[in-house]
Amino acid sequence: MKYTFERQIYLNETDAAGVIYFANLLTICHQGYEESLAHFSINLNNLVKETNCALPIIHSESDFLKPIFWQDQILIIIESHLINETEFELNYSIFKEEEEELKIKLAQAKTRHVCININTRKRCQLPEKILTWLLINN
Amino acid sequence: MKYTFERQIYLNETDAAGVIYFANLLTICHQGYEESLAHFSINLNNLVKETNCALPIIHSESDFLKPIFWQDQILIIIESHLINETEFELNYSIFKEEEEELKIKLAQAKTRHVCININTRKRCQLPEKILTWLLINN
Amino acid sequence: MKYTFERQIYLNETDAAGVIYFANLLTICHQGYEESLAHFSINLNNLVKETNCALPIIHSESDFLKPIFWQDQILIIIESHLINETEFELNYSIFKEEEEELKIKLAQAKTRHVCININTRKRCQLPEKILTWLLINN
Amino acid sequence: MKYTFERQIYLNETDAAGVIYFANLLTICHQGYEESLAHFSINLNNLVKETNCALPIIHSESDFLKPIFWQDQILIIIESHLINETEFELNYSIFKEEEEELKIKLAQAKTRHVCININTRKRCQLPEKILTWLLINN
Repeated sequence: MKYTFERQIYLNETDAAGVIYFANLLTICHQGYEESLAHFSINLNNLVKETNCALPIIHSESDFLKPIFWQDQILIIIESHLINETEFELNYSIFKEEEEELKIKLAQAKTRHVCININTRKRCQLPEKILTWLLINN
Repeated sequence: MKYTFERQIYLNETDAAGVIYFANLLTICHQGYEESLAHFSINLNNLVKETNCALPIIHSESDFLKPIFWQDQILIIIESHLINETEFELNYSIFKEEEEELKIKLAQAKTRHVCININTRKRCQLPEKILTWLLINN
Repeated sequence: MKYTFERQIYLNETDAAGVIYFANLLTICHQGYEESLAHFSINLNNLVKETNCALPIIHSESDFLKPIFWQDQILIIIESHLINETEFELNYSIFKEEEEELKIKLAQAKTRHVCININTRKRCQLPEKILTWLLINN
Repeated sequence: MKYTFERQIYLNETDAAGVIYFANLLTICHQGYEESLAHFSINLNNLVKETNCALPIIHSESDFLKPIFWQDQILIIIESHLINETEFELNYSIFKEEEEELKIKLAQAKTRHVCININTRKRCQLPEKILTWLLINN
């Protein structure tokens, strides 16, 4: 199963060149990741408090294939990959929704997350809930 | 009729103080305004091209009543007021959604917009579509 | 004495309408406030830890007089006003720097801050350092 | 020659996890790129108008080595690489400034830019000014 996040591009995400500002694509992808967790009833805020674990990003990448404009209706498909017991990667495929189910690929991105103890900032095992979410979202 | 916009608070909208960064509340309100227009099938981008009119904001205000946290599920009620033939104001009431239909007011905001010709940057009459949207969204 | 903050407008602060996105003006003003504190050797982060006090914004306003474009060289003059022992207001005047010392006023803004205890979230007295900074920055 | 950009981390760039929001690092790097162009008296806005060329980003990457906190004083060293007559890459090394000239590497990033004609959106040769800037900034 893969999670799909849909919404329009807002004015605040564009720049004077008339297209989405490049770094905002990663922000939108991360919002999709947050929606995916919420959909699976995972509250990251509470998870941090319960487990003392945080999931910071250690690497991100993005590739722009076509310009993304204000008010484009986009759809992001998120795939997750467990790398090892302390690390996972999310892959985002960003499409524009056109009439008649046609989808045009606009961009792709990835984020790599590690699980750390918030006190020591050392790596620790991913919480059970996250492992289950990764499995289902694969 | 009033337009209602619902969504969670995303991580990128918070700051190191653990709450929403103050200026981001206005951005979220503006996203609600964009959703309201989209809901009424108004594409502002096309409207600008068709009418040579833009609707820049000349004034904004926001009041914070309670802290707004990451992953709070918020609901924004947007009311519009026609000021005169070249100007309108939007009022935003921001609530937190709690169980059993209870709503707690977190904040309020307003934005005032004028209609200008994009070439002369002088004031001009609001387009028909916007007038109708203002009437319905009142 | 008033504090002056100068810098160019960056691409990420503009939108597809070709001008600064309205909410970003408040963010730039707040950066000026942070620079003013740093200039006075106040580290807000440490102050929070030492005093258990935070200074959240309860009200903001902005007025746009002229469009602000990408790469405009702006100058923000910040004036502070002590309201009472738990509250202060900052007033920002935003100018464009032109040749020969000519300054054109582009916008103005204000933020109102209260001092709260971060544990109880109740109002408390402004820390000494902030009172001194307010006095000097007046 | 390499260009160096220095400034503090502002509150709006952090998130509720207490560190810089990952996508904001790329925004700060891009601001350094804009400062480097301004330092070399290149006004990208005017360049677009004169040459009909734009320089959109087709790829970005970032790696986080250590957490970046609010009010950290950072320093970004930017190196440029000409890839071919229509494309260049910028490499950013992000350091924290400590006492006595000690620098701790916090992160690294890259952006890859192509030159396109803004009307056809097809690739075209990099403008002379950009080629000279790339040479000097190498």
